[in-house]
Amino acid sequence: MTYFSEKESIEIVNARMGSDTDPRLREVMAALVRHLHDLVREVGLTQDEWEHVIGFLTRTGQICSDERQEFILLSDVLGVSMLVDAINNRRPVGATENTVFGPFHVADAPIREMGDNISLDGKGESCLFEGQVLNVEGAPIAGACLDVWSDNADGYYDVQQPDIQPRWNNRGRFYTGPDGRYSFRGIKPVSYPIPDDGPVGQMLDRLGRHPYRPAHMHYLITAPGYQKLVTHTFVGEDEYLASDAVFGVKTSLIAPYERLEDADTIWRSHFDFVLVPA
Amino acid sequence: MTYFSEKESIEIVNARMGSDTDPRLREVMAALVRHLHDLVREVGLTQDEWEHVIGFLTRTGQICSDERQEFILLSDVLGVSMLVDAINNRRPVGATENTVFGPFHVADAPIREMGDNISLDGKGESCLFEGQVLNVEGAPIAGACLDVWSDNADGYYDVQQPDIQPRWNNRGRFYTGPDGRYSFRGIKPVSYPIPDDGPVGQMLDRLGRHPYRPAHMHYLITAPGYQKLVTHTFVGEDEYLASDAVFGVKTSLIAPYERLEDADTIWRSHFDFVLVPA
Repeated sequence: MTYFSEKESIEIVNARMGSDTDPRLREVMAALVRHLHDLVREVGLTQDEWEHVIGFLTRTGQICSDERQEFILLSDVLGVSMLVDAINNRRPVGATENTVFGPFHVADAPIREMGDNISLDGKGESCLFEGQVLNVEGAPIAGACLDVWSDNADGYYDVQQPDIQPRWNNRGRFYTGPDGRYSFRGIKPVSYPIPDDGPVGQMLDRLGRHPYRPAHMHYLITAPGYQKLVTHTFVGEDEYLASDAVFGVKTSLIAPYERLEDADTIWRSHFDFVLVPA
Repeated sequence: MTYFSEKESIEIVNARMGSDTDPRLREVMAALVRHLHDLVREVGLTQDEWEHVIGFLTRTGQICSDERQEFILLSDVLGVSMLVDAINNRRPVGATENTVFGPFHVADAPIREMGDNISLDGKGESCLFEGQVLNVEGAPIAGACLDVWSDNADGYYDVQQPDIQPRWNNRGRFYTGPDGRYSFRGIKPVSYPIPDDGPVGQMLDRLGRHPYRPAHMHYLITAPGYQKLVTHTFVGEDEYLASDAVFGVKTSLIAPYERLEDADTIWRSHFDFVLVPA
């Protein structure tokens, strides 16, 4: 079993790990090698295809920069990000579900008062977001921080257009009082394509897939004594709801958007978030 | 089945492929998604581990350059390169086996006469390489091209030391005559580490693996009407023979190195290559 053989390739490679390898690393690497070899064997990967894979991974790494993470994008469009999120955030029925964090969160957004407007560029259809942060027994959670962010009416986050959008456009943090209630104004988000001018975009194209995400508002909700909640609320009638390029949609996260008569505020979206004890 | 669920993640992701996706691409992608998701589920990959993987792949891509291919190295040390080579080059008993091509081949090496010396830097223990190129019936193959290359006595290929080694040091092409015989002088190759100052080297270190390859001479043998043969011959007593960092060793490729009394030539290595019809 010392030398390589097609038949025993998995055992031979894994037998090389040193005896004092970290047990968790050993477990993950052994499973990785097994799945990689099984995949190659199963599809009968050709030399040309292997070269194509090497080239694809290389281009994916080379396009990464401080502003762009193409490997996260790859993980997203293959459903891997959502799967990792799912297995690490299993929650009881009734608790709000997680979804992907995405690459556009910025820490330390301005802390605002309830009712404030986070839309600073005056573009888009204004929307009132309101609801409560509750525990699984239905009691309000005081002191919960709702860190919220969305794209603007053109489908870009402020960090994607640092020269065009005001800083912190469509972002803010809100702290709940004793009633657990939150309310803020923003815009009804719009659907947008993930960056599709790189290797991942080319791959989606060859797979006959579009790069769009349905419109959504991001929430990162934290409260002392509770599990962190990373989620979105989705705009229900969005045309990409059933085909989110990164598989982020869950039925329970589709929020109502009710049209108002108010001249200043066109929409209202009510959504209650239910947190699980830490 | 429209929205993501942990349980049906594979089916949901694969159902997204368009109906006119190339059938082979569909087959490979579907198997890739299945193995990736199974791997994540099986090991219960944590969010932190996922971020580590993203960082590792990114660093691996970023260190690639015209002179360095870290993803090939990664494929090599995980035994994937050898497995791809094996499933694409299954041969009848008696035919010479393939092994990894490696990153150090240079096309269009000088064509030399039988008996010529390819060692141009005067370093190392001189060695006569000789034998025959045969078909599976044992008949000599005329007009076979042996493209050969090895490291120098310091363990570096000429392309790794463009300022130190003469161009084409330890490289050459030889064409067989009607007797199928070849003979050339070079040096007895030495073991060397694969480039280990990048992400792959760090990974090997954490796995308790060394980065060395046992000493070997590279051969790329082509002849009209025969399958291309990409192989090495290994120096039998090398200390890394049983632990080649890239799993390239096969028992049938271990060559004899016989010590000579000749003052000019210290070693002789005889090896016959057996080609399979195309």
